[in-house]
Amino acid sequence: MWRYGALLPLDPQLDTDARHIVALGEGHTPLLDYSTQATARAGGFRLWFKDEGRQHPGFGGNPTHSFKDRGMAVAVSMARRFGITAMAVPTQGNAGDSLCHYAQAAAIKVAVAMPDNTPDPIIGNVAAAAFRNPDVSLELVSGTIREAGLLLKERYLPEGYFNCATFQEPGWRIEGKKTLGLEIAEALGGQAGEWRLPDVIVYPTGGGTGMLGMWKAFTELEALRLLDSKRPRMISVQSAATAPLVTAIANDASDTVAADAGDTLAYGLNVPGGVGHFAVLEIIRQSGGTAIALSETEIADSTRQTWNDTRWWVCPEGGACIAALPYLLESGHISRGDDVVVVNTGSFEKYLPQVRHLL
Amino acid sequence: MWRYGALLPLDPQLDTDARHIVALGEGHTPLLDYSTQATARAGGFRLWFKDEGRQHPGFGGNPTHSFKDRGMAVAVSMARRFGITAMAVPTQGNAGDSLCHYAQAAAIKVAVAMPDNTPDPIIGNVAAAAFRNPDVSLELVSGTIREAGLLLKERYLPEGYFNCATFQEPGWRIEGKKTLGLEIAEALGGQAGEWRLPDVIVYPTGGGTGMLGMWKAFTELEALRLLDSKRPRMISVQSAATAPLVTAIANDASDTVAADAGDTLAYGLNVPGGVGHFAVLEIIRQSGGTAIALSETEIADSTRQTWNDTRWWVCPEGGACIAALPYLLESGHISRGDDVVVVNTGSFEKYLPQVRHLL
Repeated sequence: MWRYGALLPLDPQLDTDARHIVALGEGHTPLLDYSTQATARAGGFRLWFKDEGRQHPGFGGNPTHSFKDRGMAVAVSMARRFGITAMAVPTQGNAGDSLCHYAQAAAIKVAVAMPDNTPDPIIGNVAAAAFRNPDVSLELVSGTIREAGLLLKERYLPEGYFNCATFQEPGWRIEGKKTLGLEIAEALGGQAGEWRLPDVIVYPTGGGTGMLGMWKAFTELEALRLLDSKRPRMISVQSAATAPLVTAIANDASDTVAADAGDTLAYGLNVPGGVGHFAVLEIIRQSGGTAIALSETEIADSTRQTWNDTRWWVCPEGGACIAALPYLLESGHISRGDDVVVVNTGSFEKYLPQVRHLL
Repeated sequence: MWRYGALLPLDPQLDTDARHIVALGEGHTPLLDYSTQATARAGGFRLWFKDEGRQHPGFGGNPTHSFKDRGMAVAVSMARRFGITAMAVPTQGNAGDSLCHYAQAAAIKVAVAMPDNTPDPIIGNVAAAAFRNPDVSLELVSGTIREAGLLLKERYLPEGYFNCATFQEPGWRIEGKKTLGLEIAEALGGQAGEWRLPDVIVYPTGGGTGMLGMWKAFTELEALRLLDSKRPRMISVQSAATAPLVTAIANDASDTVAADAGDTLAYGLNVPGGVGHFAVLEIIRQSGGTAIALSETEIADSTRQTWNDTRWWVCPEGGACIAALPYLLESGHISRGDDVVVVNTGSFEKYLPQVRHLL
């Protein structure tokens, strides 16, 4: 992803920047053609699957198998540039695994707080690191990312740990997530070196950094006259168990109201309220998009079906996006002939105990 | 697997025994027909894949996704019966993950020592347990199961930890592994309730408990007049990197000589010398079998091919067994018309960082 260095806070082509960059293979993930999917076939639209979860031959690959690596690669590189020696992050799982991985590579101390019901492979990655490296701290909390954030504020931030929580750092993670939008526009532009946006982007939205990152990328590409002002309809997909964005859209509210967290297979979506949700809502409305919630049965069935169809390592959040397609077709947010991009933010391997029976 | 209670040290049908049993779903794994495999097709033999790694619909499933659970379920149940309160095991990985899981369920203290290069998911499972539960200890050593055993002898056994190492406990693990042989004989016998053995069993052999367990099962079935004296040719598959059994067979030796450990994708086979190897050699010879070593390239290619053919979650040790088939056909250990059972001792999910590029 660092080939977009000119649009990032650090550019590997500049000697002064390059030495700070912690690059571990993140980004350059494939945009897979999934137009064979049943709803896409019936609805006559072209479906693309942006697979952030695992390495495909000839592509890069996020080292901790989720889109979180894009943001953390930039955040940790910038931390190094500014001489930060300790970082902390509250997380639903993947962001913590990612920060832990990058911080260790940069020899930065790291504290990760996550819910105690986070899937074993994610807890295991950070626990193994904490076990081997005294500079890694892991805290498990009862609750969600919200309680994790409170614990860090109480115990770690006063010790000088830099807060790397969504929207609470200077925007480095959003800069990294921009590359998701840049890659989609570049891949759809094709061999000719054009840049082209899809008609619809279906994105599983927890905190929403990815949504803001992609949107910022499109704005910058327009400023560079590589794109016009047309934007994709941006669709936020949530779990019915925890759907603050869906509620806000339905109520025409300018921000979400933090609700109680639910219980969902799509752990990354279990974010009861997000600091940047007001901005996500703006993007959704400005783009003519919407927010939609899926039931746990729909999420599980869709994850299973996608795996059976493709053998791609789909995460439940990605499965939720596929499950949203029939509703979006019915509501007119997707039309015949559209290019639709679904973002699969991670890999089922991070959720194995919970999804194994689906596969 | 506890339906074989009458042949196990504890029988769930006896009130006095039942309360000690720690049953977590182990055993009752499927015997999958893989006669479509290229060598089987070309060689005209029937190939069966005993999948110990993951749950298939309608079957049980080893809770830590390896055949080790059969042995540990019995070992921990017996420990509970005898009032043992602390257990320790040196391991190449899977046995430690398994003991950790069962001991926790039985509220028994546990110490696991394993090589520091054990795949992340295995270290992660035990590290996460050690992180959350003060009764779980994890030690990482430089070397193999041998160095792990030395560490436990020095630091944990003097503290009263019961040694659950292969062949160093009273044989409970072998009793559990017997069920592997019982299930194979029962599955091949078919619906009629007959018991039938295959002509060949191809088994990835590290320490060799499974080999002894299956053999003991066949002996007991014969004593019960459910089988005659005919036995399958027992084939030990090893990695060329660490192949003490292959060397012993070639040298006509009665026991293995502990060699330096190698470096193999099939971690479970990286056992330089096994206390019970003399008994494995006896079984191999008595059965008309052999021991065979595969190169790392062959193991990797075969694991990839098996995954591509079947989408079963094959572990490298299982891949090694499939890779052995052409050699066994050529050497006459497999003949046209034979029933051949390959044992897939675990799942690729325990080796993900090492096998992901193969899948």
